[in-house]
Amino acid sequence: MRINASSHVPYLFARRHLRSLALMVALLLAAGTSASGPQPQDSWLDGYRPMAQRVIDTSLGAPFAWRRLAELTDTFGPRFSGSANLEHAIRWAEAEMKRDGLENVRLQPVHVPRWVRGTENLEIVEPVPSSLAMLGLGGSVATPADGLRAELLVVGSFEDLRSRITDARGKIVLFNAPFTSYSETVTYRTNSASEAASAGAVAALVRSVGGMGLRTPHTGMMVYSEDVPKIPAAAISAEDAERLARMQARDGHVELRLRMGAQTLPDAQSANVIGEITGHERPEEIVLVGGHIDSWDVGTGASDDGVGCVVTWEALRLMKALDLRPRRTVRVVLFTNEENGLRGGLGYRDAFAEEAAQHVLALESDSGVFAPLRLGYTGPDRGLQTLSDIATLLTRLGIDRVGAGGGGADISPIARAGNVPMMSLGGDPRRYFTIHHTQADTIERITSDEVSRAAAAIAVVAYIVADMPQRLGAYTATN
Amino acid sequence: MRINASSHVPYLFARRHLRSLALMVALLLAAGTSASGPQPQDSWLDGYRPMAQRVIDTSLGAPFAWRRLAELTDTFGPRFSGSANLEHAIRWAEAEMKRDGLENVRLQPVHVPRWVRGTENLEIVEPVPSSLAMLGLGGSVATPADGLRAELLVVGSFEDLRSRITDARGKIVLFNAPFTSYSETVTYRTNSASEAASAGAVAALVRSVGGMGLRTPHTGMMVYSEDVPKIPAAAISAEDAERLARMQARDGHVELRLRMGAQTLPDAQSANVIGEITGHERPEEIVLVGGHIDSWDVGTGASDDGVGCVVTWEALRLMKALDLRPRRTVRVVLFTNEENGLRGGLGYRDAFAEEAAQHVLALESDSGVFAPLRLGYTGPDRGLQTLSDIATLLTRLGIDRVGAGGGGADISPIARAGNVPMMSLGGDPRRYFTIHHTQADTIERITSDEVSRAAAAIAVVAYIVADMPQRLGAYTATN
Repeated sequence: MRINASSHVPYLFARRHLRSLALMVALLLAAGTSASGPQPQDSWLDGYRPMAQRVIDTSLGAPFAWRRLAELTDTFGPRFSGSANLEHAIRWAEAEMKRDGLENVRLQPVHVPRWVRGTENLEIVEPVPSSLAMLGLGGSVATPADGLRAELLVVGSFEDLRSRITDARGKIVLFNAPFTSYSETVTYRTNSASEAASAGAVAALVRSVGGMGLRTPHTGMMVYSEDVPKIPAAAISAEDAERLARMQARDGHVELRLRMGAQTLPDAQSANVIGEITGHERPEEIVLVGGHIDSWDVGTGASDDGVGCVVTWEALRLMKALDLRPRRTVRVVLFTNEENGLRGGLGYRDAFAEEAAQHVLALESDSGVFAPLRLGYTGPDRGLQTLSDIATLLTRLGIDRVGAGGGGADISPIARAGNVPMMSLGGDPRRYFTIHHTQADTIERITSDEVSRAAAAIAVVAYIVADMPQRLGAYTATN
Repeated sequence: MRINASSHVPYLFARRHLRSLALMVALLLAAGTSASGPQPQDSWLDGYRPMAQRVIDTSLGAPFAWRRLAELTDTFGPRFSGSANLEHAIRWAEAEMKRDGLENVRLQPVHVPRWVRGTENLEIVEPVPSSLAMLGLGGSVATPADGLRAELLVVGSFEDLRSRITDARGKIVLFNAPFTSYSETVTYRTNSASEAASAGAVAALVRSVGGMGLRTPHTGMMVYSEDVPKIPAAAISAEDAERLARMQARDGHVELRLRMGAQTLPDAQSANVIGEITGHERPEEIVLVGGHIDSWDVGTGASDDGVGCVVTWEALRLMKALDLRPRRTVRVVLFTNEENGLRGGLGYRDAFAEEAAQHVLALESDSGVFAPLRLGYTGPDRGLQTLSDIATLLTRLGIDRVGAGGGGADISPIARAGNVPMMSLGGDPRRYFTIHHTQADTIERITSDEVSRAAAAIAVVAYIVADMPQRLGAYTATN
């Protein structure tokens, strides 16, 4: 749930959340705390146990998915919207899906924004020159070519700035708000430029939104308000933010020079990658799983979100390899442009608007797969009961429940359009937000076991939801 | 001992090591394993207990030394030989020592080499362009201005290269030797360029000599052999080394472009900073303590070795503040140019050649202060007995013994010249070598308690060795 609270979750069904959570807690208490986790009240799942066993054995038996993630991230590196790397990766994924034997493999064209970072740096010029670790924020405007030189003002929060608003004019304002959770602090990344501009500042710096790493700045999207001047905005490492705060506290006078060559270019052509296992009885009903194939322009986008693509895709590859064909269609979508536009998710909704209500469930993996795994759900209560039953098959994977609250940025548009229940699969947020949007988002952070477990969990859940006689969330005697 | 084995330790007294280690083990066994550590055999130390108590109370009572380290590293940032930052820091330290009331504060002029990194980068150009995290190695020559483009060859070791020597011609060779310990793997940083050049390679890359961080390359010195062409050499992050190794294993063809603008300029003027507490009875006898004020040109040189300067300096400040004046002189030296020339240590030896034998002990702190602290010693056995007695006063600081083997690069020249016993104070090598020579070597890694403990330990040891009636290592009835 922390993952979901700190991700892009549209709080559909918000009132039902509390009820479903209460119900689930009651069920868990009633089921006791046996070593194998809570057991379902009835045996409707029994027919699926051998399948789950095979899927889990196969997935844990070989590091196929980790190797695929390594090939994706090694070969193409960062896959930023508008880059050739992203388009190469998309065509590779399409070809590989065909090699896997997935069905109806195709590209769904989408236009994506194209922001380019350009050359950038930040340095202390007074009292003694020294360079700082920075990353411009996505969407920022550039500085003049020879940079902006101005005095520093460090504030701790938006409130702090407002209380010292006359100090900010003509300055570079640093928002040194310590990272607590992503949901609480991401507002500084998103809104600092316009807050600082309102106070007359010439540029905004943000303490990186993420746990302190090894002087690793975290990039990400920022947004300008309509009514104030657009000023350049960049993230600096937590260490550099602390350093500047100490310098201001010590003697007050620090001058910085910020140079950013950022540009927003015309939109570029990109695509969502789609593959399926077609349902044998109700092929028009869709269980959608996916992640996003684009990444920021630093790191190699392994946890955000190469791994989400690979583990959802792997769920279908496992079904194909094990000759598992459910009643309904299971569809994997590798969305483009989640990071700085959400055009992939919006484009999917537009292309499949007429079939939105045919989506039975949409599951996204976009919070890493760092152990322990977490499954979250947003939807009708009775769907949560069914999914909690299914989760009892996943105890070998370190999962024994489904939390309230689940979704993902890319699946939100189709979910809104079709009132589709959503799930998320994610992992330990501490590990995730240490590397999130940094150059350290590489495959070395993730074990092959973590990747295999996530793929198996998605395969079991997606297969059963696609195959069970009743549609997820519909009332029946047995669920 | 691990710290010492993995640092610049000249193995003076090598044969005595084993004897002293065996003797110390015997003493420790005889002393049992009481909670307060081994107790000295006699009470010669009793007169020093109140002093030790006061020094430790004072040092742990306020984060004075941590704040000084913050001021040094925040204000001046990296302090590379030949830079204005280093010279500013040296003059600041001189002024601060005078403010502390240290005696005979002066600068001892030293010429230092001046290597400048220039603009540099490394990218994969085939199969898909992608930039890598790199740092040129100190002393390297430049590439041509538009870079060197060549095919990659990854080898695991020097032996591996020799077994594939015909494959290396015209290539950029990556030595992907996993980090075990600094002493075992630093040879790849030092010698890879000439090893690769011998095989006809056009450039050498080295997997960073340090634990895997967050895609953080580690710089450091390299050395060219006389008889082979000088080719450019750079370190890459462990993650990038693994990535390139996987790419070679996968399909074999990777092309890189390396650009380095490195230059070696004429020597620059620098200085060692010297301050003293003059002895009241034998002022000509010197207990020398110190660290090195220069750092690499990345990070802010907090652990390597701002903290070594601050904690040894703090030992004298504590003596001054507590009105402790020993029989002999205690001298702190902040050496310049340890990192890429050792000119500070050599210059000190030359300037004090006639007094070399008057140095009673030389202690360097150049391995961080990460808990648990370690004291090491290289010298006559009976000195180790005395120091082990003294260490019983340090149990509050997490120290209860003195290990065999201790020294430091900067104090080695004077120690050789005067046959001076050496000590080192260092800390946990795992934390140290994760950030060593990286941009993450900042004060955020070090707690104020760690700094205070190190300063107190050095103050107690230096004071007693400077004050006790007999010279360290001399035979008496009581030590």
